[in-house]
Amino acid sequence: MSRTIYLNGSWMPEGEAKISPFDRGFLMSDGIYEVTCVLDGKLVEYEGHAARLQRSARALDLNLPVDEAELLVLHREIVARNGLEQGMIYLQLTRGAADRDFIFPPMDTPSTLFMFTQAKDVLGNPAAEAGISVVTVPDLRWGRRDIKTVQLLYPSMAKMEAKAKGADDAWMVEDGVVTEASSATAHIVSADDRLITRDLSHALLPGITRASVLELAAAHGITVEERAFTVEEAQAAREAFITSATNFVIPVTSIDGARIADGKPGPLTQVLRALYVDTRRAAAI
Amino acid sequence: MSRTIYLNGSWMPEGEAKISPFDRGFLMSDGIYEVTCVLDGKLVEYEGHAARLQRSARALDLNLPVDEAELLVLHREIVARNGLEQGMIYLQLTRGAADRDFIFPPMDTPSTLFMFTQAKDVLGNPAAEAGISVVTVPDLRWGRRDIKTVQLLYPSMAKMEAKAKGADDAWMVEDGVVTEASSATAHIVSADDRLITRDLSHALLPGITRASVLELAAAHGITVEERAFTVEEAQAAREAFITSATNFVIPVTSIDGARIADGKPGPLTQVLRALYVDTRRAAAI
Repeated sequence: MSRTIYLNGSWMPEGEAKISPFDRGFLMSDGIYEVTCVLDGKLVEYEGHAARLQRSARALDLNLPVDEAELLVLHREIVARNGLEQGMIYLQLTRGAADRDFIFPPMDTPSTLFMFTQAKDVLGNPAAEAGISVVTVPDLRWGRRDIKTVQLLYPSMAKMEAKAKGADDAWMVEDGVVTEASSATAHIVSADDRLITRDLSHALLPGITRASVLELAAAHGITVEERAFTVEEAQAAREAFITSATNFVIPVTSIDGARIADGKPGPLTQVLRALYVDTRRAAAI
Repeated sequence: MSRTIYLNGSWMPEGEAKISPFDRGFLMSDGIYEVTCVLDGKLVEYEGHAARLQRSARALDLNLPVDEAELLVLHREIVARNGLEQGMIYLQLTRGAADRDFIFPPMDTPSTLFMFTQAKDVLGNPAAEAGISVVTVPDLRWGRRDIKTVQLLYPSMAKMEAKAKGADDAWMVEDGVVTEASSATAHIVSADDRLITRDLSHALLPGITRASVLELAAAHGITVEERAFTVEEAQAAREAFITSATNFVIPVTSIDGARIADGKPGPLTQVLRALYVDTRRAAAI
């Protein structure tokens, strides 16, 4: 069944959606995106994603052509039009079409706003029980990873490299410490049960799920340490996991072939996933 | 007058050109490009650009859907269809349209090949006489700048920053040394008349015009030193200039407000531009 997508004010079957190849998102990667999870046909952590979209747009002087209320309406309407019970909404905003130039086009150039859905069994993800294996790769991405741009070629290459090595995902390493997973936040649990998560900076994305999980961990009595950690520290950790909008919390059971603890999903990881699903599903709008 | 563009085997007016927003060039910056200069309706340094396109495609496992002979025919045909005497041909190749996933789609997914022209008075560029001012910015681009990808958001931001500061262009600096201009190679001439140009690596693009100018300088009896240089060394240089496919050789007369020598285009710079134009115009096909 064809999906119904949203493009610049119109709804249409996905196969009919067309943009100009002069779109700066296509010619110059001049665009940002957000991914919002859907559970029970409702939006998970919508406010965080909407706020981050505004933040990315401001950082690049991009015009979001809809206001806050309209943005929420579009998210709800795309769920309804696609009868989406579980999965994700992808939203992309670019500087629009103009003849190619490094200099931005006039501010009144119409932006491009594109949205589509993907169905995914987020709750029943087998990786939540089995855990995933990761390999490390050098972090070759640009220097403003705190802005959620569409410059995803390297994360895509990293996932391909992980796949070629028989692993499920890649963790990126820069200056001897882990920055992020290819499209998720990396976390470890130390031998004395502290949750260690890299502190925010230009080096990584301010994850919406990351923030929630740190808050849930603290409320659960866990000491949270926001700092960088090395691959060696991660390999020696008691637990490791990733967080992202459509993964929630997924255990990591090996890093570069080294098993994490007994190679089974860690208990704190499982508690945090359960807490996340319970609270954020209940709060979905 | 509307341009005639090429898109995936068809010729059409630019306004009719449409691609899917599911194109990976749009969603994930999964694409490469080349720019070939046109003089007297002929292709300048075509072989170098065609070879670099193949090299970028191989580096990313992209399929070029036309063979060498067809590629040349397309370049000649777009010139003819647009009656282009002077300017540039832009070519972009992406991994094509597929439902969004970090993992590459199957190898038989049709690539997207897009070409258009821009008219430009390349020979009469006033900057060749007047020179340009540049400001330096940190080089925040990804780590594989030797592959000519469409990840041009940061170079675009750098040009905007230069413009906001009243300058014509930006030079990028990393680890205390200059990497490149925002979309050109950076060169300086030392007090003892050596041409100093950064050596090739993953840090910068192997410029086609760069290679030609180094060759022409050596044939002209100039000692060429391929090594990195600092901003301070550049500011103290006898001459500075940039090279690119559509700029040829353009003098740089100030860097971060510091005048280069007497603030006028340098004599060697002018000789190299004249040599470049004469030889490459004569050799255009």
